[in-house]
Amino acid sequence: MKNNLPIIITTGDYNGIGPEIITKALEKLSLPEDKILIAGDEKLYPAEITSKHKFIHIPAGKVQYGQETKESGEFSFQCLKEACLLAKEKKISGIVTAPVSKNALHISGHNFSGQTEILELFLANEEQKAEMLFVANDFRVLLLTRHVALKDIKITKDMIIEKTSRLYDSLQRNFHIQKPKLALCSLNPHAGENGILGAEEIKEIQPAVNHLKNAGIDITDPMPADTLFIKAAQAIRQKKEQPFDCYIACYHDQGLIPIKLLEMNNAVNMTIGLDIIRTSPAHGTAYDIAGQNTADSSSMEAAIKHFLLF
Amino acid sequence: MKNNLPIIITTGDYNGIGPEIITKALEKLSLPEDKILIAGDEKLYPAEITSKHKFIHIPAGKVQYGQETKESGEFSFQCLKEACLLAKEKKISGIVTAPVSKNALHISGHNFSGQTEILELFLANEEQKAEMLFVANDFRVLLLTRHVALKDIKITKDMIIEKTSRLYDSLQRNFHIQKPKLALCSLNPHAGENGILGAEEIKEIQPAVNHLKNAGIDITDPMPADTLFIKAAQAIRQKKEQPFDCYIACYHDQGLIPIKLLEMNNAVNMTIGLDIIRTSPAHGTAYDIAGQNTADSSSMEAAIKHFLLF
Repeated sequence: MKNNLPIIITTGDYNGIGPEIITKALEKLSLPEDKILIAGDEKLYPAEITSKHKFIHIPAGKVQYGQETKESGEFSFQCLKEACLLAKEKKISGIVTAPVSKNALHISGHNFSGQTEILELFLANEEQKAEMLFVANDFRVLLLTRHVALKDIKITKDMIIEKTSRLYDSLQRNFHIQKPKLALCSLNPHAGENGILGAEEIKEIQPAVNHLKNAGIDITDPMPADTLFIKAAQAIRQKKEQPFDCYIACYHDQGLIPIKLLEMNNAVNMTIGLDIIRTSPAHGTAYDIAGQNTADSSSMEAAIKHFLLF
Repeated sequence: MKNNLPIIITTGDYNGIGPEIITKALEKLSLPEDKILIAGDEKLYPAEITSKHKFIHIPAGKVQYGQETKESGEFSFQCLKEACLLAKEKKISGIVTAPVSKNALHISGHNFSGQTEILELFLANEEQKAEMLFVANDFRVLLLTRHVALKDIKITKDMIIEKTSRLYDSLQRNFHIQKPKLALCSLNPHAGENGILGAEEIKEIQPAVNHLKNAGIDITDPMPADTLFIKAAQAIRQKKEQPFDCYIACYHDQGLIPIKLLEMNNAVNMTIGLDIIRTSPAHGTAYDIAGQNTADSSSMEAAIKHFLLF
């Protein structure tokens, strides 16, 4: 870890697999006790965890595995809020979040489309905005848009420039990549086929790319996503270095299908662009297997391990 | 092949890799000469091919590798048109198409977004419509929408019912699967999260699923595509049977990213729903490597081999 401050792990929705994967990951990684804070309720964890790690106590309601409850939504929100406040006070060096249910958040009156948006509420400012990056070893995918309905996806020149610049800074600052190489997905199939299948590539995306190239950023023209990610797949299969340090996807499924298909267990959801880095497993609450002790903690381990790398 | 009629292979855009992959595939597969007709110009092929197989002669212009020309667009169109006319006359049992350039088609005045749409023009009627299916062994993906700009994607209840029914018939009739199991992708991320991330799942998709289930079709509720395709990936990696006989994707990249990432070389683009089956490699004209004799003919071989399977 980059300094002596602990990282905080938020429990997330206790009706899902959050406490289970945190417990499994911490037992496996066996980190120094002063390096980990847990935001949540001690009653959700076994004695091995509560005896070793310090808690920021957030009271949990009744555990109802697989149910979206008002109490679990409120608890999820409070865990992350506490983490954000500690980050503001510079008392922690990183945030790891277990999954939450957006529905439970909504039921409890917190209308956010995800944890990234809660982090933004507390930690973003004029210059610092949250960006959603998925990382599995050297395969990285940035999302230009996040949790929005497909019909509401809107890609603009300014958005691409702003988010790509923020990504570029983070790759240099957080990942120590001196001259990042970026690949950009087109919004439309076949990169719009010269405007036949959509105008955004011509009107918004290519102008943004030209602007970024002029600013010295190494980025491709908009590439059809279905063929672009084949290069990523080949690198993973052949255990070679990725040809690009990050792939920029226009929307959720375009970026998440590749990373989940290729690297489900290693994928970490990262929030970059703010003063503090937040990591999270790439999966959800997994209500369907909650309470069965069958959840795979690999992605949570990878989320915690990020803070051991740099 | 299901009867004694030959299949026809269309040359596609001769400024791309069409003639090269057809030549390589035919040399590798070494099929009886009377089983193959080639729509195109003999001058584009080596003597081994022209001496063995019968041609439906379509005159080609000057070959300009990597260029979208009016002549190559016109030629691509005429090759497929001839194939369609022979299909109408019931003189062939299947169509295999090499890739075309949509831009070259447009330049030559043929405003189609793909070959599937040309097949529809000549061969569709009130009851028979073309559907776009991608097949790699037992991993199959149907597209509900094809070559449209992202902002123009519209998924309706009627469309899902109609296309799924057509798929179901084809899986029974063309693939001899008695009781097909179907998986349906949601349009929006996280299946819309109960309407928070888009209304289509509630208003259009689930009602269509309910209707299909009532009609005895085995189909899932709309599932988030980024996690649904993990099941397909696992089956391929573990060399197990696919859990579903077909995955139904709402749009181009949602369906093509998974099949290209997981099965690039084995993937075949099929047109089902018409009287005749058409197959095609899953890749494009590959202008960037045209004329270099480096193209991989695996996908073209798979496209031809489909007609040997049933």
